[in-house]
Amino acid sequence: MRIMVALGGNALLERGEKPDAEIQREHVRRAAAALAPLARDHQLIICHGNGPQVGVLAVESEADPNLSRPYPLDLLVAQTQGMIGYWLVQELQDAGVEQPAVAVLTRVVVDRDDPAFARPTKFIGSGYRRDQAERLAAERGWSIAADGERWRRVVPSPRPLRIPELASITGLLEAGTIVVCGGGGGIPVAEDASGGLVGVEAVVDKDLTAAHLAVALDADRLLVLTDVSAVMRDFGTPRATPIRSLGLADLADLHLPAGSMGPKIQACEAFTTATGRPSAIGALTEAAAILAGSAGTTIRAHGPAPVEQFGPVATGSRLVL
Amino acid sequence: MRIMVALGGNALLERGEKPDAEIQREHVRRAAAALAPLARDHQLIICHGNGPQVGVLAVESEADPNLSRPYPLDLLVAQTQGMIGYWLVQELQDAGVEQPAVAVLTRVVVDRDDPAFARPTKFIGSGYRRDQAERLAAERGWSIAADGERWRRVVPSPRPLRIPELASITGLLEAGTIVVCGGGGGIPVAEDASGGLVGVEAVVDKDLTAAHLAVALDADRLLVLTDVSAVMRDFGTPRATPIRSLGLADLADLHLPAGSMGPKIQACEAFTTATGRPSAIGALTEAAAILAGSAGTTIRAHGPAPVEQFGPVATGSRLVL
Repeated sequence: MRIMVALGGNALLERGEKPDAEIQREHVRRAAAALAPLARDHQLIICHGNGPQVGVLAVESEADPNLSRPYPLDLLVAQTQGMIGYWLVQELQDAGVEQPAVAVLTRVVVDRDDPAFARPTKFIGSGYRRDQAERLAAERGWSIAADGERWRRVVPSPRPLRIPELASITGLLEAGTIVVCGGGGGIPVAEDASGGLVGVEAVVDKDLTAAHLAVALDADRLLVLTDVSAVMRDFGTPRATPIRSLGLADLADLHLPAGSMGPKIQACEAFTTATGRPSAIGALTEAAAILAGSAGTTIRAHGPAPVEQFGPVATGSRLVL
Repeated sequence: MRIMVALGGNALLERGEKPDAEIQREHVRRAAAALAPLARDHQLIICHGNGPQVGVLAVESEADPNLSRPYPLDLLVAQTQGMIGYWLVQELQDAGVEQPAVAVLTRVVVDRDDPAFARPTKFIGSGYRRDQAERLAAERGWSIAADGERWRRVVPSPRPLRIPELASITGLLEAGTIVVCGGGGGIPVAEDASGGLVGVEAVVDKDLTAAHLAVALDADRLLVLTDVSAVMRDFGTPRATPIRSLGLADLADLHLPAGSMGPKIQACEAFTTATGRPSAIGALTEAAAILAGSAGTTIRAHGPAPVEQFGPVATGSRLVL
């Protein structure tokens, strides 16, 4: 099967950890070890997050006295694609993966009229005192919002529309290469009046970009891998239990706490609706078990049903489970 | 023809300029405009330098109070490949180039026993007072050397041996894609005892990596583009005149001032020796004229001779001019 893996940026750096290269590298090593067994039997496409990493570079750029203004977001995302893409390729091969792996710098086209531009929601960079943040907002045209006690920059998170590098990625996949692409949701660009592409100050959600790529690349599965083991019923209460299987029709009734689970479920919904094929959410360390349906939460086009009931899925099949 | 272009990092940021994104972007725009006419008739492979850019990121990383130690060089080079690769792809398309273009994260394997490791020569990062530099050298295991009045870190510049991404780059080229690869000389890695690859603290000269790639990718020409118009006879004197054409046999007699011209001529020599095909050095803005032999310095396997004497070179031909 062709499997799109969406890998959380937090899986590469946990909250509270120092963003040292060695610490992140160790996380990437563990991610590669979890993905290596899948690569033996399947063709992988890997889309990684970059939240903590783009944060580090944004803060460094804000503090750089040699710059007239900090680097724009498209540039910072491109830098993180370089860094994380390199690590993933290197560590996959160190984990014994035999196929060649390559990381492709990937842009993502968004719509300038996306409603997200009117309502920036994604925190980025350092926390400041309110007066400092207001001064920076005036100087740099930032939108700002309170994040706990501190004030931070917020940027829009528009939907992914198109991946200019799609044909190159397809060619590499067809040659049997593992492709790391769409990192950090892709380098955000939009069409200008002349039809050219220009960078925009936005961050596209990497799970949504992964779903978009998974559909466009005719993937058989979308696996959204993170640091939680499954979508939970009664999350945050003593009765919390993992949901093993969901149908598309169940998603509307799902009451989830605010946070990052929303885009993950949205990504699965988009992929499974478009293709009829299963998608799943779960812990990176259980990647193989999630694919087998014995861990994580699997989302199917038609109602919850144990995967065993239908037997194994043929490779490349469009069979709806 | 298939043409490997080696693009100087200084062509993307001049000495003394602020390393602002907008300023670098404008340089990339001019580079893309100079390369666009070549892309109409030929297949391009682009290898860019990153000296000033990796310097900016190294200084930011050294100053980052959140890191236990600055990011290693392999990581910084990977970040600059992300940033500059994105710019080049975007601006080539904005300059009206019709082929798809894609940037590939590229490693370069070097030999741990390369004599360069015993004699680090390449300056990197900030300048410090001698006592500060000595403290950092002790803390971080740096080699340091005087650069004018200040002391700076120096790193080895070993020779490129092998490009792990070669098959992917070849596949993309064969599909008609312009490939940006080997940026900053490639992300430096070396084999460890188990045969795996690990990052090393080194910077590979991008002209030598471009020559290596040009040979491996069966390029018809190597163009080393920079901010000087040609190799000069009597450089720095009132009698200075551009050398239009050189044979391999002339190179030994060439007396050049120290500086960055050395690796450029070495790169041309390596390519022309290995393939018998011409290579050239000249100004980025004159790329098309250099290819035509009417600007820059062309290096041929056999003696200087005006290109007209031999008529046009057949596309893909192995003819030695």
